[in-house]
Amino acid sequence: MRDSGVIGIYDSGLGGLTVLSAIHQVLPNESTVYLGDTARVPYGNRKPETITKYALANVRALLAYAPLKLLVLACNTITAVALKTLQDELKIPVIGVIEPGAQMATAAGDKIAVLATRATVQSRAYQEALTKCGHEGFVHMQACPLFVPLVEEGMVDGPIAREVADFYFRQLPKDLDTIVLGCTHYPLLLPLLQSMMPEDVKWVHSGEAVANKVKGIIGNGNEAAPLRKYLVTEAPDRYRQMFEFFLGKPVLKEQVELIDVRGI
Amino acid sequence: MRDSGVIGIYDSGLGGLTVLSAIHQVLPNESTVYLGDTARVPYGNRKPETITKYALANVRALLAYAPLKLLVLACNTITAVALKTLQDELKIPVIGVIEPGAQMATAAGDKIAVLATRATVQSRAYQEALTKCGHEGFVHMQACPLFVPLVEEGMVDGPIAREVADFYFRQLPKDLDTIVLGCTHYPLLLPLLQSMMPEDVKWVHSGEAVANKVKGIIGNGNEAAPLRKYLVTEAPDRYRQMFEFFLGKPVLKEQVELIDVRGI
Repeated sequence: MRDSGVIGIYDSGLGGLTVLSAIHQVLPNESTVYLGDTARVPYGNRKPETITKYALANVRALLAYAPLKLLVLACNTITAVALKTLQDELKIPVIGVIEPGAQMATAAGDKIAVLATRATVQSRAYQEALTKCGHEGFVHMQACPLFVPLVEEGMVDGPIAREVADFYFRQLPKDLDTIVLGCTHYPLLLPLLQSMMPEDVKWVHSGEAVANKVKGIIGNGNEAAPLRKYLVTEAPDRYRQMFEFFLGKPVLKEQVELIDVRGI
Repeated sequence: MRDSGVIGIYDSGLGGLTVLSAIHQVLPNESTVYLGDTARVPYGNRKPETITKYALANVRALLAYAPLKLLVLACNTITAVALKTLQDELKIPVIGVIEPGAQMATAAGDKIAVLATRATVQSRAYQEALTKCGHEGFVHMQACPLFVPLVEEGMVDGPIAREVADFYFRQLPKDLDTIVLGCTHYPLLLPLLQSMMPEDVKWVHSGEAVANKVKGIIGNGNEAAPLRKYLVTEAPDRYRQMFEFFLGKPVLKEQVELIDVRGI
């Protein structure tokens, strides 16, 4: 069924791979093409106009590479800034990471904390999405800016990660029932984070929420040998190993390609 | 004497401010213009050609802003990649951060460790500079990738910074006599790092080495009211506070300007 299009996943860098991983688990027989804009990562501190310009150029390059039937913006920053523009621009469904996570959190609990980067906290995108989903309970936004460098260093357990997590957890209010991982890097820290919180706390991994939403729109795929491509805008050799770490499975050299994103 | 030019300091972001700070201490009566390419920071993972392109465009913008009598590349990555090109291109002295630090380290001791980012370690620029300076003793390169995010979070002391420093220090060989801070962010961690090492270890702050080299070339300035300008390529309001943290002194709103770096 590849003729009818593949699922495109676009992120500024690596974090979106946790969303891709969830899509692979929920929809193992769908083809996927992942694009990480490694030449311009990180987007966090860029101006909204710059991020929108990057997003349009990257998505055009992705569309030129493969026919897409659905596009996932697997990055909180891109979702917060450019979701509406891309939904207006494209003729296929475009899904961000924020709303599915907010919906899952609203269904899961009442007293919610969202762990996120400082840029996501400041964007107020989660607070607005939770309100839009009808959540009326308590919401605490917790910026955890050291989590991304820890994950990118592969330090997802051990005393440093524990000390950093403890530092942020001490700033959380008591009696939370639900914690949202509001950054695509954070699922790699989940085993550690879970071990440090009471067992009855519910955890929302927005990648899982996105994967379920994708399945709701396009149904189950049925490809016997689905395509798995990883595109980067710089340094394919350097990133292949990182892809393997984030996905927890081998990625072959020929699966990673350098893509030319013109006009940016 | 401003007519004869000011000292230009160029970095990808904030780290070069520790070099600027040392220049202000050693040469308090010289005018300085600092340019941080905040729209494109960090450079660490970019291709050499990309970094050279950025460097040429930024330096042209700096020259258009003020007449320079000397340019400091206050960044290890830019120095490693683009020093030679800029020295060939410009008619003024161009100084990088690596060679002055290597010279100071060679004079200071025999058994040397260099703390640096992973990119700087991989570039082998310090090893080559130390050899070029005639250093024949032992050199250990230690990548400390979590130091930059710690400093940018303002976490330069306390249990997390201590745990991270301890993690890297455990990887150092015994009996070092000299430690080089091979990244411009690291001087902000110096009080903590010094407190964790034997007192007789000598510390090389390459900003100080650069400032002394600048003084050797241009002599003491004699301006009564030297110019202090801070240019950024994005988000002047967001960065002003960071400038104050890095410099340890107030920076006025009117001292920070957005600059248009064309052609990149």
